Amino acid sequence: MARNITTRSQDYSQWYLDVIKAAELAEHSPVRGCMVIRPTGYALWEGIQAGLDRRFKETGHVNAYFPLFIPLSFLAKESQHIEGFAMECAVVTHSGIERDPETGALRPTSPLEEPLVVRPTSETIIGAMYAQWVRSWRDLPILINQWANVVRWEMRTRLFLRTAEFLWQEGHTAHETAAEAERETLMILDLYRRFVEDTLAIPVRAGMKTDSEKFAGADRTYAIEAMMQDGKALQAGTSHNLGQNFAKAFAIQFQARDNTLQHAWTTSWGVSTRLIGALIMSHSDDEGLVLPPRIAPTLATVVPIAKTDEERQSVLAYADKLVARLCGEGEVARARAQRPNAEGLEVFFDAATHQRVYVDAREGVRPPEKHFAAEQRGVPFRFEVGPRDVASGNVVVKSRLGTKEIVSLESLDAPSFRARLDDFQKTLFERALKLRDERTTSAASYDELKAILAERGGFVRAPFIPSREAEARIKAETKATVRLILPAAERSGERRPCIVSGVDTDVEVLFAVAY
Amino acid sequence: MARNITTRSQDYSQWYLDVIKAAELAEHSPVRGCMVIRPTGYALWEGIQAGLDRRFKETGHVNAYFPLFIPLSFLAKESQHIEGFAMECAVVTHSGIERDPETGALRPTSPLEEPLVVRPTSETIIGAMYAQWVRSWRDLPILINQWANVVRWEMRTRLFLRTAEFLWQEGHTAHETAAEAERETLMILDLYRRFVEDTLAIPVRAGMKTDSEKFAGADRTYAIEAMMQDGKALQAGTSHNLGQNFAKAFAIQFQARDNTLQHAWTTSWGVSTRLIGALIMSHSDDEGLVLPPRIAPTLATVVPIAKTDEERQSVLAYADKLVARLCGEGEVARARAQRPNAEGLEVFFDAATHQRVYVDAREGVRPPEKHFAAEQRGVPFRFEVGPRDVASGNVVVKSRLGTKEIVSLESLDAPSFRARLDDFQKTLFERALKLRDERTTSAASYDELKAILAERGGFVRAPFIPSREAEARIKAETKATVRLILPAAERSGERRPCIVSGVDTDVEVLFAVAY
Repeated sequence: MARNITTRSQDYSQWYLDVIKAAELAEHSPVRGCMVIRPTGYALWEGIQAGLDRRFKETGHVNAYFPLFIPLSFLAKESQHIEGFAMECAVVTHSGIERDPETGALRPTSPLEEPLVVRPTSETIIGAMYAQWVRSWRDLPILINQWANVVRWEMRTRLFLRTAEFLWQEGHTAHETAAEAERETLMILDLYRRFVEDTLAIPVRAGMKTDSEKFAGADRTYAIEAMMQDGKALQAGTSHNLGQNFAKAFAIQFQARDNTLQHAWTTSWGVSTRLIGALIMSHSDDEGLVLPPRIAPTLATVVPIAKTDEERQSVLAYADKLVARLCGEGEVARARAQRPNAEGLEVFFDAATHQRVYVDAREGVRPPEKHFAAEQRGVPFRFEVGPRDVASGNVVVKSRLGTKEIVSLESLDAPSFRARLDDFQKTLFERALKLRDERTTSAASYDELKAILAERGGFVRAPFIPSREAEARIKAETKATVRLILPAAERSGERRPCIVSGVDTDVEVLFAVAY
Repeated sequence: MARNITTRSQDYSQWYLDVIKAAELAEHSPVRGCMVIRPTGYALWEGIQAGLDRRFKETGHVNAYFPLFIPLSFLAKESQHIEGFAMECAVVTHSGIERDPETGALRPTSPLEEPLVVRPTSETIIGAMYAQWVRSWRDLPILINQWANVVRWEMRTRLFLRTAEFLWQEGHTAHETAAEAERETLMILDLYRRFVEDTLAIPVRAGMKTDSEKFAGADRTYAIEAMMQDGKALQAGTSHNLGQNFAKAFAIQFQARDNTLQHAWTTSWGVSTRLIGALIMSHSDDEGLVLPPRIAPTLATVVPIAKTDEERQSVLAYADKLVARLCGEGEVARARAQRPNAEGLEVFFDAATHQRVYVDAREGVRPPEKHFAAEQRGVPFRFEVGPRDVASGNVVVKSRLGTKEIVSLESLDAPSFRARLDDFQKTLFERALKLRDERTTSAASYDELKAILAERGGFVRAPFIPSREAEARIKAETKATVRLILPAAERSGERRPCIVSGVDTDVEVLFAVAY
């Protein structure tokens, strides 16, 4: 097999794109800035959706759907908000197309009275609806989430990390009190942290953003930040306490328990297909994609190895036996009936998640190519079965993390496979955590910060009093930004001089160059 | 309670809107033609998604995501296709907004080089991608589905049935042979039929569309058609055999088994949020929404009835006991911990579908108002518990279909509740089937067809040789269209004179006025 993935040390950016291409996760579309998410990539998003959606519902949220289009005038009602999004909005101006009778070219026709913006985020249109729905404190809280596509016109795009259109979820809640809104904001931040760590095996730091990094229209933005293998940080999810800003802009008012008329307190929060970029960059290696089992669409590939037709028959029957032990006889029969002529066989291991075991019985493809394909696609386990294994009743089990075992067919069943998958998941998280901790250092001065960022990147802790001016200077000089203000519990406790102003402070922040 | 729902006999259209409003399913948004799908309405869509998605995956399909935007030039590549959609396209022409320095008004800025159309359907952009993915017969079939929003600019909109933006799924498959594509088209048609009948309890007719009713760019369109209570038909899902039309327009070519270069055979198929309109109109009555249990977000409401505080305490404890029997102690504890201050309690009956049992313990709301709310929202069962029931160990069980039973608390548990839900589902389907059959008649002449359509509507079977001219005339004179050409197995078998041309034919069609 020709090597088709650039190594990380050669060119990290190219490695990222090569991994995506080799695993067939996504590709650029003919529409500028928009990507096509291919089935394997989309299955990762479905895993993210399922995991988060369940957690949202268990914490009392419901889903709803609001219009794709937002009237131009709505965006302008919250002044910070419009400034944040004005120059990256797709604007719909016409409602038809026609052929130019002279040139034959197509052109827009039927201009709209008021142009519409394709939602870059939905605070404004949702705020307008909440204003209609909320009358009394009894109508609160509203705990709504939306799964949707959004558009932010980006000049420089990068698959999953920054695309003109992306998929996300946006939660929008409205509350009676400031305290309740803050509780919701932090509860969701923690929900994101747990999901990303438990399911995606990506360790994250959680904390607050500085004023210059917060969402356009928020009082406070909280985020989870992950560390990639190249020493850059990646914002993996945000949770905003919007205070009464949008409630005032859209008149979301309610009669309070004391009969006064009050503005509601709102929050919004989201994660997007960007998480898939974080997933790829957290775990993958120079051979290709590495996926945590809790999200991998294919959990194992069975590779039958045979030279003669006779060997092939007995090896395929043995492979079937193995898959039946893992997935159940019924599932194997169903899968075969479903596609009687297919060479490969996809069998559901988990009916709820549709995660699969794949028997790679393709003819005319040699075993090393099959290994190579499974490796590049990040399949956690590979089961090899050849004539010797059939004779001895064994299976060669290779993990995507490099381990190799020879085990008896008898010892392989759904529970033992699940245990292997759990071990794999744990190892992956620990590996990422070790890497993250190795890439976290401290700086006591601005010079030290600059030296660390230039030499090794990563997260750098430092005493710092956030200000727009100081942050702008640091960004200009080092490309780094304040990723998070560390929560009080994670600070050292001592007062030390701010690395820019020299004024003593107990505030500690995490600097990093970020995606 | 003031009567807030117009009766069907008074004004069927108003009744439909009143039912949607009373059940809080959806409402018009400030964006012309676009609706807001409220949580209860969206939960219906989630039920439809879950049911279909599982069936798609079990039949070998995978999901993917393609761009929202389509270059103007792509739409024009298939000539029938552009004609079908040109005058209902939202067109994006700019990528930013700015303030007019003189008037202060917002206006579009940064014009795009090529305008983009918001997808009305995705055959063209997906065709362009398949052309890149398909090289050899080994790359086929491609069996991809997409869950997405689409936009078709409609002048006269109606919640769920016809909106500028709607949600749907669109399957797009590519095959090696014409026969395989036809098999897929019909397999999906049958999958739709089974889902709509089994889960939504809506009986449907399945068959082929005439040329004048088929999809813009298809060789053949098949559809399922349901009969509403007002005698109008509603197209509930379509499955198109696109032949090689899009493969030729987008050069989806592959090296065949015999080494010749061939164009692929493609299909596309979809159902949309329109199905929710069919669901509402199939089952609901003058009191409000009626929902089949397989799709109802709330399966039962428990209404505690108490006059004194002491009664209230014992009745609420009894209600908790009931819900614990249905949903499990753990779920009740979890729900209560989740929202300790909430007056009502939402407990998951089914963790996989998130269908709930609701204890309506709201203070200051009288039991008749609670009954009324549950009725209007189409909750299948209502459990009433008062002091007498506590004393006797009984529960009053009322079904949304009008039955009332007094049963012992002991007899209520998850399996017996499931059995009640199954009975309810069956009754609902049988009721709708009876209504549909009563509204199906035959006509042997055009005069007879006209008389039936004028008097009673419904489906009218008739011998008819489809032609654009005859169909246009019938539509102009009666508003009716050919909903389906009946499959051979459902025809009478005899040759009879076409009701328009008088020429003998064995073709039978189903006429109806349609939504």
